[in-house]
Amino acid sequence: MDSQRVSHIAKKSQNISEWYTDVVVKSELADYGPVKGCMVIRPYGYALWEAIQKFMDARIKKRGVQNAYFPLFIPESFLHKEKEHVEGFSPQVAVVTYAGGEELKEKLVVRPTSETIMYEMYKQWVHSWRELPVLINQWNNVVRWEKRTYLFMRTSEFLWQEGHCAHATHKENLAMVMWALKMYQKTYRDLMAVYGIAGIKSESEKFAGAAKTFTYEIMMPDGKALQGCTSHDLGQNFAAAFNWTVLDQSGTHIHPWQNSWGFSTRSIGGLIMAHGDDSGLRLPPAMAPIQAVVVPIYKTENKDAVRAYAKKVASSLRGIRTYCDDTDTETAGFKFNKWELKGVPVRIEVGEKEMQAQAITCVRRDTGAKSNIALAHALLSLKAELKNMQSAMLEQHRKFTDEHTQSVDSYAEFKNIMKTSRGFIKAMWCEDRACEEKIKQETKATTRCLPLDAKQEKGNCIYCGKPAQHRWLFAQAY
Amino acid sequence: MDSQRVSHIAKKSQNISEWYTDVVVKSELADYGPVKGCMVIRPYGYALWEAIQKFMDARIKKRGVQNAYFPLFIPESFLHKEKEHVEGFSPQVAVVTYAGGEELKEKLVVRPTSETIMYEMYKQWVHSWRELPVLINQWNNVVRWEKRTYLFMRTSEFLWQEGHCAHATHKENLAMVMWALKMYQKTYRDLMAVYGIAGIKSESEKFAGAAKTFTYEIMMPDGKALQGCTSHDLGQNFAAAFNWTVLDQSGTHIHPWQNSWGFSTRSIGGLIMAHGDDSGLRLPPAMAPIQAVVVPIYKTENKDAVRAYAKKVASSLRGIRTYCDDTDTETAGFKFNKWELKGVPVRIEVGEKEMQAQAITCVRRDTGAKSNIALAHALLSLKAELKNMQSAMLEQHRKFTDEHTQSVDSYAEFKNIMKTSRGFIKAMWCEDRACEEKIKQETKATTRCLPLDAKQEKGNCIYCGKPAQHRWLFAQAY
Repeated sequence: MDSQRVSHIAKKSQNISEWYTDVVVKSELADYGPVKGCMVIRPYGYALWEAIQKFMDARIKKRGVQNAYFPLFIPESFLHKEKEHVEGFSPQVAVVTYAGGEELKEKLVVRPTSETIMYEMYKQWVHSWRELPVLINQWNNVVRWEKRTYLFMRTSEFLWQEGHCAHATHKENLAMVMWALKMYQKTYRDLMAVYGIAGIKSESEKFAGAAKTFTYEIMMPDGKALQGCTSHDLGQNFAAAFNWTVLDQSGTHIHPWQNSWGFSTRSIGGLIMAHGDDSGLRLPPAMAPIQAVVVPIYKTENKDAVRAYAKKVASSLRGIRTYCDDTDTETAGFKFNKWELKGVPVRIEVGEKEMQAQAITCVRRDTGAKSNIALAHALLSLKAELKNMQSAMLEQHRKFTDEHTQSVDSYAEFKNIMKTSRGFIKAMWCEDRACEEKIKQETKATTRCLPLDAKQEKGNCIYCGKPAQHRWLFAQAY
Repeated sequence: MDSQRVSHIAKKSQNISEWYTDVVVKSELADYGPVKGCMVIRPYGYALWEAIQKFMDARIKKRGVQNAYFPLFIPESFLHKEKEHVEGFSPQVAVVTYAGGEELKEKLVVRPTSETIMYEMYKQWVHSWRELPVLINQWNNVVRWEKRTYLFMRTSEFLWQEGHCAHATHKENLAMVMWALKMYQKTYRDLMAVYGIAGIKSESEKFAGAAKTFTYEIMMPDGKALQGCTSHDLGQNFAAAFNWTVLDQSGTHIHPWQNSWGFSTRSIGGLIMAHGDDSGLRLPPAMAPIQAVVVPIYKTENKDAVRAYAKKVASSLRGIRTYCDDTDTETAGFKFNKWELKGVPVRIEVGEKEMQAQAITCVRRDTGAKSNIALAHALLSLKAELKNMQSAMLEQHRKFTDEHTQSVDSYAEFKNIMKTSRGFIKAMWCEDRACEEKIKQETKATTRCLPLDAKQEKGNCIYCGKPAQHRWLFAQAY
């Protein structure tokens, strides 16, 4: 990282999108690729994705779901088999028209998602209830064409996992849908310290081809909501479209019930947004590639001794991902800025004073709190500090979300909030698509979800005044 | 797996390619996808790839190489920057010509390999020797169009890792090239129990754009050689083509030295070929997803007791990947065949006799050797057995390779071998491309490599009779 690049990042409060791009590029999480819409995920950013993969993959396997790999290319005709599905994805696909020096007879779509190609195979493999459930996941790349890139948040190619299961009954199917949603919620909360609201999508906002879509909606600092991931109950839609039947226990041909669920690199965009500040990234300890960085502070006369002490400190912190930044070509002050920008949870300063006292000075990235600890207690103390920091960051984001969630009963108030602070709005809605469309046109707010914990109420639609049963969560979407 | 599919596989000795496809499809490692040339890697096959990833990824990281992710799409013009590179890959690429509903101004190539897109970014990121070396790897999918699919061995899309490093000196660069080659050799030998010969490629067989290519060549049962992986010293070719310079310590602009190295899902094809037999797969214990399968053998009257004992046996084998196949819908004999087909290293049979004696009967997949062991000693005994089996399988393949390697001094003898048993032939060659080409035309044998341990000799080219210095390794290539 060269010295010019560390120094200037835009202020988060002044221009959040400029700040965001500065942070992503200058902390070396990612960069723009040569093709419009495509990003390069650099090692520091990819390490975040690996942390997510490790956390989720273990849980996916424990649930009995196995990883597999299906082809990148889907025959164009496949996409057309499920009517809503093709309408949803056609405008976004990238298409291969020639290969191996010849024009192709049938054009190939670069997968925007893999329902169609996977279910064609499921149909060939599974003919009896005995072979159900099918529990398959894949970690891969997908392409949905975008004209304007927003690193991590909106890119033509992104990485994700897509789970695709098939069950003999709707009950089992729904259990898997909810399991995936809860697993995602756990990933956001326990690993990424990102709070959000789990709920069900409206008919117009659900996935193309799904019966029901569940989501985790995350409030961003600018008052807009990010759809963090989705888990879909596909019902029997795809099985019917692909004409896939299996024999059930009574010897009847039935269409299996299917679900799909996906979590992508977009989540990293949400993490950066939710936690970053004017100095750069703030990474929650559970997923930080480097949890503690040791920076030696020395003069010519004590250089060797202090650097040796710094190394000793770093190697004593077993079980904490520690990096000793003892390069001689940057000043300590420059290093402080650099590691703040990169969001390392704890900075450990060691100089003459610390060396003499066999101690360390710790600075927390989230609060800036400084403490002096004896080296003998450093490991235990730091472990506790990191654990604290993890829950404090989640709590901070939960509090932020609560403070930016308002329950309203008049459309005037609704419009006023959308003109000013935005955030989540809880409002009664009659579930008529026309009202939803009007609200979107007039305020930019869309229904984000019906929260899982929403209670049935008696009331009237905020827009049309007709009877309504639930308070839906509205916000402007990313 | 339905009962019809387990029963019939072709004989390896009679029709190896039919046998191979039968084994891959019927053991559920993989299947043909709907697009020509593209395969579906099923969970059982993907677990093998995950074992390879786990083994290699830890070593890659330990060497200081970090994972990252570069875009799938490469602007067509990029491929043209390195002359040999474009000539090598152009005939094989798949091309995206429209996306997002519009025809693209510049066509996009689906990456056949990532040199060009990665080095364009390296050039933007690195300007000084201080920022060298660049040590980056990615696990991804690449596409090289094929008309005829051969599952795992030759597919239009395949999975691999590609390491791409850049160094300030040729010496460091070469050290990384050799490190990768040795790491691959270790993966083949210690994990996959596949023997092979490491060496350097001839000028005509090297990678398009490389200065030197190193390879691991594997002898297959039909006497043909499989190129198991490659590690390339790219010299300064790509840096020059991309006009990438960095300032060295003396303030001079130099082109960095680069290398790339790749290992793909093709290796799984080699594994299947090398070890399989007429009953199906034989998986080396170190990479087998299931190392031991417990099959209870019971009648109606002792069914519950024997099945409970089988479960007890399975759960006692801590540290061994064990599966208890106690489904009631298949006979024990059917299960034996099924797990043999799937290549599980050890089958554990438990029936009334074993239950009474608190013992197990073990059958080794590689030798068929049967032994009876007291349950109290089962864990230690099985661990030793699996370790034995791992080295026995490597030794078996090493012996096979040795027996199919002949050193010849006359071209008549060379031709005769190629007409009959094939295998590796060690023969003096003058290193003139014309002779290599003639030998290929007349015998189908190509130079596979100059083995790393080849000694300088005085002799004459087997083809033209001119002076030659080394015995090269020839074989017909897959």
